[in-house]
Amino acid sequence: MEKINRVIASIKPLDERAMEEARKRQDSLTKPKGSFGQLESLSIQVAGIKGDPRPKITHKVIFTLAGDHGVTEEGVSAYPSGVTSQMVYNFFRGGAGINVLARHVGVRVVVADLGVASFIERHPALRDKKIAMGTRNMAKGPAMSREEAIRSIEAGIELIEEELTKGIDILGTGDMGIGNTTPSSAIAAAFTCCDVATVTGRGTGIDDEGWRRKVTVIKKALEINRPDPKDPIDVLSKVGGFEIGGIAGMILAGAKHRIPVVIDGFISGAAALIATSLSSLVKPYLIASHQAAEPGHRILLEYLGLKPLFDLDLRLGEGTGAALGIFLVEASLKILNEMATFAEARVSEKI
Amino acid sequence: MEKINRVIASIKPLDERAMEEARKRQDSLTKPKGSFGQLESLSIQVAGIKGDPRPKITHKVIFTLAGDHGVTEEGVSAYPSGVTSQMVYNFFRGGAGINVLARHVGVRVVVADLGVASFIERHPALRDKKIAMGTRNMAKGPAMSREEAIRSIEAGIELIEEELTKGIDILGTGDMGIGNTTPSSAIAAAFTCCDVATVTGRGTGIDDEGWRRKVTVIKKALEINRPDPKDPIDVLSKVGGFEIGGIAGMILAGAKHRIPVVIDGFISGAAALIATSLSSLVKPYLIASHQAAEPGHRILLEYLGLKPLFDLDLRLGEGTGAALGIFLVEASLKILNEMATFAEARVSEKI
Repeated sequence: MEKINRVIASIKPLDERAMEEARKRQDSLTKPKGSFGQLESLSIQVAGIKGDPRPKITHKVIFTLAGDHGVTEEGVSAYPSGVTSQMVYNFFRGGAGINVLARHVGVRVVVADLGVASFIERHPALRDKKIAMGTRNMAKGPAMSREEAIRSIEAGIELIEEELTKGIDILGTGDMGIGNTTPSSAIAAAFTCCDVATVTGRGTGIDDEGWRRKVTVIKKALEINRPDPKDPIDVLSKVGGFEIGGIAGMILAGAKHRIPVVIDGFISGAAALIATSLSSLVKPYLIASHQAAEPGHRILLEYLGLKPLFDLDLRLGEGTGAALGIFLVEASLKILNEMATFAEARVSEKI
Repeated sequence: MEKINRVIASIKPLDERAMEEARKRQDSLTKPKGSFGQLESLSIQVAGIKGDPRPKITHKVIFTLAGDHGVTEEGVSAYPSGVTSQMVYNFFRGGAGINVLARHVGVRVVVADLGVASFIERHPALRDKKIAMGTRNMAKGPAMSREEAIRSIEAGIELIEEELTKGIDILGTGDMGIGNTTPSSAIAAAFTCCDVATVTGRGTGIDDEGWRRKVTVIKKALEINRPDPKDPIDVLSKVGGFEIGGIAGMILAGAKHRIPVVIDGFISGAAALIATSLSSLVKPYLIASHQAAEPGHRILLEYLGLKPLFDLDLRLGEGTGAALGIFLVEASLKILNEMATFAEARVSEKI
């Protein structure tokens, strides 16, 4: 817990002066004031995060964290658990959705094993942070020990800090874990106190019967474990997942190192609940890429006070939404940096 | 009118077979079925447009059409009319919003003078299609003659057909014209029969008094001119603009040549009303990039049955939304073309 506490203690608020300068520059550019809408506020936020009124982005990295979930034995997912490791190899070969979008956006993908339930072979893109061979079934007891929960968050911090030498100007979070909308819904219910059915969706595509089973399983997990929403480590250990803890750690480390953190969909959102509950100072470092199809995601983003950049009805995870979000952040910074001012272009200002 | 009629006569429905093949391929890729949401349907639409189950995009072009508006003498805009030509020179120097986003997305920008109220110097990026030195004041009579309206649409058709030799795999529409949300609101009101106040916004940023004046001016223009919504050329000539007619022509030509047409915001939407009213067959060739901040845009997109890809509260025009839209179309096609199938990646399918 010491590593986590040290990171939390070093998180600072955004740089107001850099934001003010960025705001002034946006207003001097050859466009009606505010006409780039959310892209203007985004550029100002990043200026505040980086403490630089004209920030630039070169090194873009998406971290896709993989983990398995014991709760899949309850039949809560449309896919077999083995797909988690199969998809990790798909990431290595570049054939998954995140690989395609990362190439399109020019993002590097780092894959980390936080707790896949099988041995993963070495690969240059792989970071081995395995805590255990998957979580235990949360419908029968805690998904992991408190110690494991702490280690998963610390593993996320390490992932960022080890990668810093290669450069990270912006980071996107991603996940791969068959069954992981189940713990994410449980986390959302624990923090927001919403009804389980309200925050539970169809994940990879279960049918009506499967959905009812999933709701029952989540209710049972919450009843048996009684996670304490005032203690985020308790929530993570009882109804979480290793990749969720890892993402929470990456969020904390991103905030510490003043890196804009573009969060993906529902699973990253659940991790953001853990991270912001550990320190509310991380919130302004977060950029919600998109509104995912999972119903719990909307509730969770509203709870976090985050406005997503787009809604394309995605429900894939892996960091795919974050990749597109990073592209929009870059767009916003290029606007700030490259557009001509009214004076430079000799364009008349408002009457 | 002969050129317009010839183009309309050659527009065909989308290729159902290519769409079916693209749909099948989407379902075979290593992701839960439908999990790429609107990006999947987008790729299938483009397959149908191009008649190719795995379409690729190389040549991306945005056409930014400029024109001036006589109605600005009524004080409907926050900027002086001279800004239209000043911005055209800003486009040439690469300092405008569209230049920045076009570079970001890798799109070529073609600027066309459809009716700027001053002489524009020659430039490699400029296409001279000037119909007149701006429209006449529609609050006092028709904005242009019927003949001029036809010529503006034909100019748009010519722009596309002349550029075809350089290659256009996808096209985006854009506009520059101080005062042009006023004719666009008038067109929206004429076609949708909505109340003028409902479809009128603040354009580049007029105050309350300016907005009330704008509504009054549009009402007056509709009363004096009585545009016939069953005759789109009549609507364009009475309450339109040269760049709006040009965009309508580009939409028709895009549909004829089976090119996906990514429309920008409110002004391009008004042009889409003209084009789809000339031939309803163009509709499936349209991709609405974004929901703009102008209130009339939402009404107009609903009327057209188009679901925008994103809503970032943009209200700049120039083709800026279309540029980001083109990036998303490309993303959707790369997903279709580059992702591994379940069989290729040896990933287990749904239980």
